[in-house]
Amino acid sequence: MPESDPLDGIANLDLGRADRRGYPEAVFCEGKSVDQVAAIAGVIADHPEQIHLFTRTSEQQAKALLGILPDAHWDQTARLVAWPPTVPDSTGGAVLVLCAGTSDLAVAREALLTAQYLGRDAQLVADVGVAGLHRVLSKLDLLRTARVIVVAAGMDGALPSVVAGLVSCPVIAVPTSVGYGAAFGGIAPLLTMLNACAPGVAVVNIDNGYGAGHLAAQISAPPLGPERSSGGSDA
Amino acid sequence: MPESDPLDGIANLDLGRADRRGYPEAVFCEGKSVDQVAAIAGVIADHPEQIHLFTRTSEQQAKALLGILPDAHWDQTARLVAWPPTVPDSTGGAVLVLCAGTSDLAVAREALLTAQYLGRDAQLVADVGVAGLHRVLSKLDLLRTARVIVVAAGMDGALPSVVAGLVSCPVIAVPTSVGYGAAFGGIAPLLTMLNACAPGVAVVNIDNGYGAGHLAAQISAPPLGPERSSGGSDA
Amino acid sequence: MPESDPLDGIANLDLGRADRRGYPEAVFCEGKSVDQVAAIAGVIADHPEQIHLFTRTSEQQAKALLGILPDAHWDQTARLVAWPPTVPDSTGGAVLVLCAGTSDLAVAREALLTAQYLGRDAQLVADVGVAGLHRVLSKLDLLRTARVIVVAAGMDGALPSVVAGLVSCPVIAVPTSVGYGAAFGGIAPLLTMLNACAPGVAVVNIDNGYGAGHLAAQISAPPLGPERSSGGSDA
Amino acid sequence: MPESDPLDGIANLDLGRADRRGYPEAVFCEGKSVDQVAAIAGVIADHPEQIHLFTRTSEQQAKALLGILPDAHWDQTARLVAWPPTVPDSTGGAVLVLCAGTSDLAVAREALLTAQYLGRDAQLVADVGVAGLHRVLSKLDLLRTARVIVVAAGMDGALPSVVAGLVSCPVIAVPTSVGYGAAFGGIAPLLTMLNACAPGVAVVNIDNGYGAGHLAAQISAPPLGPERSSGGSDA
Amino acid sequence: MPESDPLDGIANLDLGRADRRGYPEAVFCEGKSVDQVAAIAGVIADHPEQIHLFTRTSEQQAKALLGILPDAHWDQTARLVAWPPTVPDSTGGAVLVLCAGTSDLAVAREALLTAQYLGRDAQLVADVGVAGLHRVLSKLDLLRTARVIVVAAGMDGALPSVVAGLVSCPVIAVPTSVGYGAAFGGIAPLLTMLNACAPGVAVVNIDNGYGAGHLAAQISAPPLGPERSSGGSDA
Amino acid sequence: MPESDPLDGIANLDLGRADRRGYPEAVFCEGKSVDQVAAIAGVIADHPEQIHLFTRTSEQQAKALLGILPDAHWDQTARLVAWPPTVPDSTGGAVLVLCAGTSDLAVAREALLTAQYLGRDAQLVADVGVAGLHRVLSKLDLLRTARVIVVAAGMDGALPSVVAGLVSCPVIAVPTSVGYGAAFGGIAPLLTMLNACAPGVAVVNIDNGYGAGHLAAQISAPPLGPERSSGGSDA
Amino acid sequence: MPESDPLDGIANLDLGRADRRGYPEAVFCEGKSVDQVAAIAGVIADHPEQIHLFTRTSEQQAKALLGILPDAHWDQTARLVAWPPTVPDSTGGAVLVLCAGTSDLAVAREALLTAQYLGRDAQLVADVGVAGLHRVLSKLDLLRTARVIVVAAGMDGALPSVVAGLVSCPVIAVPTSVGYGAAFGGIAPLLTMLNACAPGVAVVNIDNGYGAGHLAAQISAPPLGPERSSGGSDA
Amino acid sequence: MPESDPLDGIANLDLGRADRRGYPEAVFCEGKSVDQVAAIAGVIADHPEQIHLFTRTSEQQAKALLGILPDAHWDQTARLVAWPPTVPDSTGGAVLVLCAGTSDLAVAREALLTAQYLGRDAQLVADVGVAGLHRVLSKLDLLRTARVIVVAAGMDGALPSVVAGLVSCPVIAVPTSVGYGAAFGGIAPLLTMLNACAPGVAVVNIDNGYGAGHLAAQISAPPLGPERSSGGSDA
Repeated sequence: MPESDPLDGIANLDLGRADRRGYPEAVFCEGKSVDQVAAIAGVIADHPEQIHLFTRTSEQQAKALLGILPDAHWDQTARLVAWPPTVPDSTGGAVLVLCAGTSDLAVAREALLTAQYLGRDAQLVADVGVAGLHRVLSKLDLLRTARVIVVAAGMDGALPSVVAGLVSCPVIAVPTSVGYGAAFGGIAPLLTMLNACAPGVAVVNIDNGYGAGHLAAQISAPPLGPERSSGGSDA
Repeated sequence: MPESDPLDGIANLDLGRADRRGYPEAVFCEGKSVDQVAAIAGVIADHPEQIHLFTRTSEQQAKALLGILPDAHWDQTARLVAWPPTVPDSTGGAVLVLCAGTSDLAVAREALLTAQYLGRDAQLVADVGVAGLHRVLSKLDLLRTARVIVVAAGMDGALPSVVAGLVSCPVIAVPTSVGYGAAFGGIAPLLTMLNACAPGVAVVNIDNGYGAGHLAAQISAPPLGPERSSGGSDA
Repeated sequence: MPESDPLDGIANLDLGRADRRGYPEAVFCEGKSVDQVAAIAGVIADHPEQIHLFTRTSEQQAKALLGILPDAHWDQTARLVAWPPTVPDSTGGAVLVLCAGTSDLAVAREALLTAQYLGRDAQLVADVGVAGLHRVLSKLDLLRTARVIVVAAGMDGALPSVVAGLVSCPVIAVPTSVGYGAAFGGIAPLLTMLNACAPGVAVVNIDNGYGAGHLAAQISAPPLGPERSSGGSDA
Repeated sequence: MPESDPLDGIANLDLGRADRRGYPEAVFCEGKSVDQVAAIAGVIADHPEQIHLFTRTSEQQAKALLGILPDAHWDQTARLVAWPPTVPDSTGGAVLVLCAGTSDLAVAREALLTAQYLGRDAQLVADVGVAGLHRVLSKLDLLRTARVIVVAAGMDGALPSVVAGLVSCPVIAVPTSVGYGAAFGGIAPLLTMLNACAPGVAVVNIDNGYGAGHLAAQISAPPLGPERSSGGSDA
Repeated sequence: MPESDPLDGIANLDLGRADRRGYPEAVFCEGKSVDQVAAIAGVIADHPEQIHLFTRTSEQQAKALLGILPDAHWDQTARLVAWPPTVPDSTGGAVLVLCAGTSDLAVAREALLTAQYLGRDAQLVADVGVAGLHRVLSKLDLLRTARVIVVAAGMDGALPSVVAGLVSCPVIAVPTSVGYGAAFGGIAPLLTMLNACAPGVAVVNIDNGYGAGHLAAQISAPPLGPERSSGGSDA
Repeated sequence: MPESDPLDGIANLDLGRADRRGYPEAVFCEGKSVDQVAAIAGVIADHPEQIHLFTRTSEQQAKALLGILPDAHWDQTARLVAWPPTVPDSTGGAVLVLCAGTSDLAVAREALLTAQYLGRDAQLVADVGVAGLHRVLSKLDLLRTARVIVVAAGMDGALPSVVAGLVSCPVIAVPTSVGYGAAFGGIAPLLTMLNACAPGVAVVNIDNGYGAGHLAAQISAPPLGPERSSGGSDA
Repeated sequence: MPESDPLDGIANLDLGRADRRGYPEAVFCEGKSVDQVAAIAGVIADHPEQIHLFTRTSEQQAKALLGILPDAHWDQTARLVAWPPTVPDSTGGAVLVLCAGTSDLAVAREALLTAQYLGRDAQLVADVGVAGLHRVLSKLDLLRTARVIVVAAGMDGALPSVVAGLVSCPVIAVPTSVGYGAAFGGIAPLLTMLNACAPGVAVVNIDNGYGAGHLAAQISAPPLGPERSSGGSDA
Repeated sequence: MPESDPLDGIANLDLGRADRRGYPEAVFCEGKSVDQVAAIAGVIADHPEQIHLFTRTSEQQAKALLGILPDAHWDQTARLVAWPPTVPDSTGGAVLVLCAGTSDLAVAREALLTAQYLGRDAQLVADVGVAGLHRVLSKLDLLRTARVIVVAAGMDGALPSVVAGLVSCPVIAVPTSVGYGAAFGGIAPLLTMLNACAPGVAVVNIDNGYGAGHLAAQISAPPLGPERSSGGSDA
């Protein structure tokens, strides 16, 4: 990089990641100052040729981003800012996102939007936890059309086990930090999911809707899609 | 106690507990030497008027007990010795014991036998975990006849949540130490059960089939049964 | 549900749960926005035929609920809103709620009110922890009239063990997040209760007064009460 | 099942799972007695139409299985018994299994064989941990031909992060229980993998090579393969 | 030490500790080879002027010690070897040792013997756990004669809280590793004791009967006893 | 109690504890509302015959207490309110309180004041942690005049081990929640203290200066002081 | 110290540490009041002959320090105040500080400045985490000129393992508290670093940039530098 | 590697590491079969030009190694096999290894031998824990001649803090798994060391004497030694 790099000593953007891996780098905003996020957006503004996602944005960070990228899309529930704002045409298999309760919506929507911005056809079904089992059983036909299912759940985290036992496609389980004391900020559903008695459950980090959506996009990628490209000479 | 107490310095049997609480004391054999267990059995042999349960017996302890109480009943799977061996006539509501997998059988049988020896009508349904949900759903009518249901499960421990959502009676959840690494000897199902999204789940200690069976006997006790008795002048 | 469902994409109310399980669904308000809680209340306002409990409400959520359901009952200590506000006539056995210290009152009151709104005769005895053992021993006669006893305790969580050793009915133990550093937000009393040396202790989640009250209502249900009903064709 | 079920009170085989989910049920042998495993094999011997995997077998269990199913394939390193022994023709995308060190081989081989018996083309590359980074970088072309990569690693568990940053396909990370004290039986690599800074990492349970291989088979399934089938009327 | 020190490179005995602190050093045998323990005993054999305690001895280590110090006292339950074998005349206040259950006896006896060998009048009362509260309440007069009480308990570890609320002297609480799964090898009673709602509870390490007995000897030391002596020029 | 008890349903003061145990009950203010604390103070105002300590008071609680008990003593660093404000004449042995760093002062002062209000001669030495060992070694003569030493330390918590190795009296170790991330809010020094290689270390809860001061007062009580009194007929 | 010590009862400055150990004491400001920090600065103002570092300062503490030491240097990102403000001439080997992401900058800058103020030539390279491995590989020549490398990383904490495998000098790994839920405030990268599969990784506390910089200064000290000095008569 | 690689599918020796990093790869034997270790030794036998260390060998593995490399040096206490057996001439600064107790000797000796085989002058001082502080203080002159000090300690792990406060060189702290229950297999001393109140403490994994010795060799490397060499074209 030239010496006039406006991010020198702060960040080292990996703008080649889309070419290298098929999916662009996202900017994780937690732990960054508003000034740092704004500086990064300033550089990104010169690169409208790829989708840029800013995840886990505070309200103040989101507003600073909209100052620099005025047409960006901000989903307040998901704490996500996307620019350019248009969702690309979808390719690959269908992604289905479920959440066990209303309190898990923020995480579920982050997964949903990430999958959509990375090029997949994705939809969300809310509040189908196992305390009222008829709710998820009534969606069985829909479940069986998906190439991959993301399930966000807190508390007992039991929904992914139940879903995985009903379908043949992989299930991505996202534990959320929702629940009473012994949920321990998501440890309880995390362990439940890692111990799912039905095989086929892929676990990601607590509250990591972005990671779930990204992984879903990779699993449901078209057979001849980006992951079949030559990649270039990384490393 | 008189000075000739054969258990002096070793144990202090609570033979009045059945009068006081309605249920006799059990002898937890783990951490006791074979000699200590045998000494206790020697004293108990003079008290055939109440049921004595020896829980978590090693094979060596069980054989020593049978030497002293030859007609005792030994269930090797449950690691339980009962004397006198005859199950009393049942009173109160029905107890149903479920286990998620074959590996949970030892715990489930300990609960089953405890409830039976404490005077309840109890039966066991094995291997109905949520990985194949149709197995437990096919038992729905049976589930709805119970006054209380005990569910033993390891791994994800998801079965109690599912069952509690389907019935109106209380569910006693017993986590078992069965599973891969991140089951952490039963911590994973323990947390799942404490965080059950369906209310009505009562949790007991890991692998504690005895405690589950005892609690089930109390919950399903007849309305005018032992717990309504005057109790005596304890404390 | 029709397409004009005002909760679409947010929540999926289980209004049939009272028919199916004998007890209505409650709305756990933590992690939900004020708007989401209000939207749910708007739907519920059309269903005065059953009791609706809103648990763990913030002050702002409670006030929004009172805007929509003006005659609702709000217990600020218990953080509970109930509508319709009238406690039903009680059936079944007596529920007794104890708390070890004044700092455990919020949890104890949540259990008390839940049991009362679910149709039980329930009363509360406060501040009877084991540091002054004479306090609980002086209540022995009252303890022995209960069909089930709920005990809320933080710190050492020793009270349920002591109580369970004195009575024949089941004890529901609720650990609270009260205490010095090594109470670890309720882990210490939770473990104490799971390891109670007296059998008959049913443990629920940390600070989960609602769960304790619900379980107490189920255990003390009348013999021919709702849990004996046919249930309907769930699942 | 008929009343003469030889597994009554022990197990409840889910022989319909292959039809329902596209993949057959496996028998987890840990915690089962040799007699129980043998009884299950006796029933399975009548069902050569699908692959049966017995995982985590002890030497004694494996020998009992070979007594009943003499032509079964036993991989001692992977502790896996498969019957019928012939690997089916492969369909779908390529599966690549990496392990960080020689001590991770047992887990890696369990994943490899599972993927192969579930119908995938799979191969193994051993001992390519990040302490000598040139080892994995020299395999970059091979890595980029895979539809999904399984990475087994203990100790620091850093290999999945590095691999996921180099490829576009999903990476399944399996923590192993290999390492010095503070690896805590696999907790250290488990946390590393859940926190991978590169998106696209799906985590399964500690030492769960079977789960990793099964998930890999699902992710790399042919586009029109079993997960597109109608499934039947489960639940 | 001279260069011919037989323990060079192995151990560095602190034979001056009795002069410096008033109590001699003990030899913790766990983690030491039989040869190392024997070498230490060989040096100690020249120092009959003070009491030497060997704690946590294996049977093999104890037998090696008896080979070198034939008149040593070996308590198999407590795993303690003492030499010279004679308990000194007692000074200071009375030490009372309680244990909650028979399974806690090994720890309680280690505390008892340590206090006696360090010069105190000490006695043991066994099996007085809170599940049968009348057992400890019947000893109230004895409890109130003690200058310090040691309480060993596993499982819920509730006994020290109850005892501390009944007496004015300090209570030393020793958690033991006895109990079902969620006792976690003594963590549960350890936390209970650290969180005792009654002040006056001093906690020592899990199963550390030696430490409890030593601390008891210090607390009950005579007012003008060793801790008032000039001490010498340590450090 | 009469029905007009102003604390009915809130608290159950144990005003007889001083007679029963020799030391009065303290009021732990954390988790209590300002109104509850004030109500308790209102009752206490009628009992100037014994010392009342209010611990862990918030600023708002302390001000409310001073409104009701205007001459009470408030130590803002220790968060302690005492009434009546006069320290009683001291009896018994000397109590010495050490703290490792300035950040541990709040806890150390709470211990100091508690011991003084419970009737002991106590003094404080600040900032003598082991990073500069000469600081504590220069106090060796003072250390050896104490009947008991309280040591408050965060971070590595190493000071109690060092002090206990230098003196013959008991050491009460109080872990504090001071330190970098892996101090885990006091867990690190708590474990250090429980594992002290020098015997004679009594551990209390994290940040529990009150408990340390109380225990110190008990250990250093005069030989014929309150703990020798008849006690009365508790329980 | 004289009786008029302005820090009496608060702090015990170790101004001789630079002579004794070669490096001056730093003032850890967390947990200290603004008044306490100011009082310490008042004493330090008389000692311009050595560098004084105030670490983990709040904004309010930093401003108070600048009131007393107006020419002090305040780095807001690192939360560090240094006085006198001039960095000394560097001696010894080169120190290189890396950070994995922008969110780790605060910790990395604290290490950088500490090493510089303690007399080393140090530089920082930001945002070179393993998700884009080419970033760190492009710095290989720079890495190999260092005498010691500090690596700050959160999330998976994988960068130190990779770097240690590429160079011969020691690597100091500092885990940071950056990441999603299962990073557990830095536990995940801490464990990764302790388990680094490449030897040569020295771990310090979570977010402890000061400790990392100090250790780096010691490792890269000149061969005949302060650590070879006579030291004086400490202890 | 050629196709006839005898380690194909098992291991991937990094024989170039000495050239690349200045220190050869070691073979961690835990988790490897005797056959695998023997196969590795067979390849290594052709490379006497560098030192090969086999760490954590079982007795059976060690004997197999001696069968293939008959003149290898086997230290049974340290569980280390070295070949060729001759320690190289030492270069660089002095390494001093301390251990707190006799039970820590195995770890300390592993560190000692590793440093010696990697080319350093190293010596061991045993049993100088802080319970008898005079032991380590009497070695102060020796401590101050070292370029780096390794300290192995279990239980409270307090020795590194004390030593680091007395010297100017870095201290490498190795927690050992020695101690009573709440040492938790080394977690207690690990946390103590990470939280050392004296800066300059570098922590390695529990019981990892090899890692400590390797790091010590790197820190005490000669100024113009291997880490200044050009390294070659790794990666």
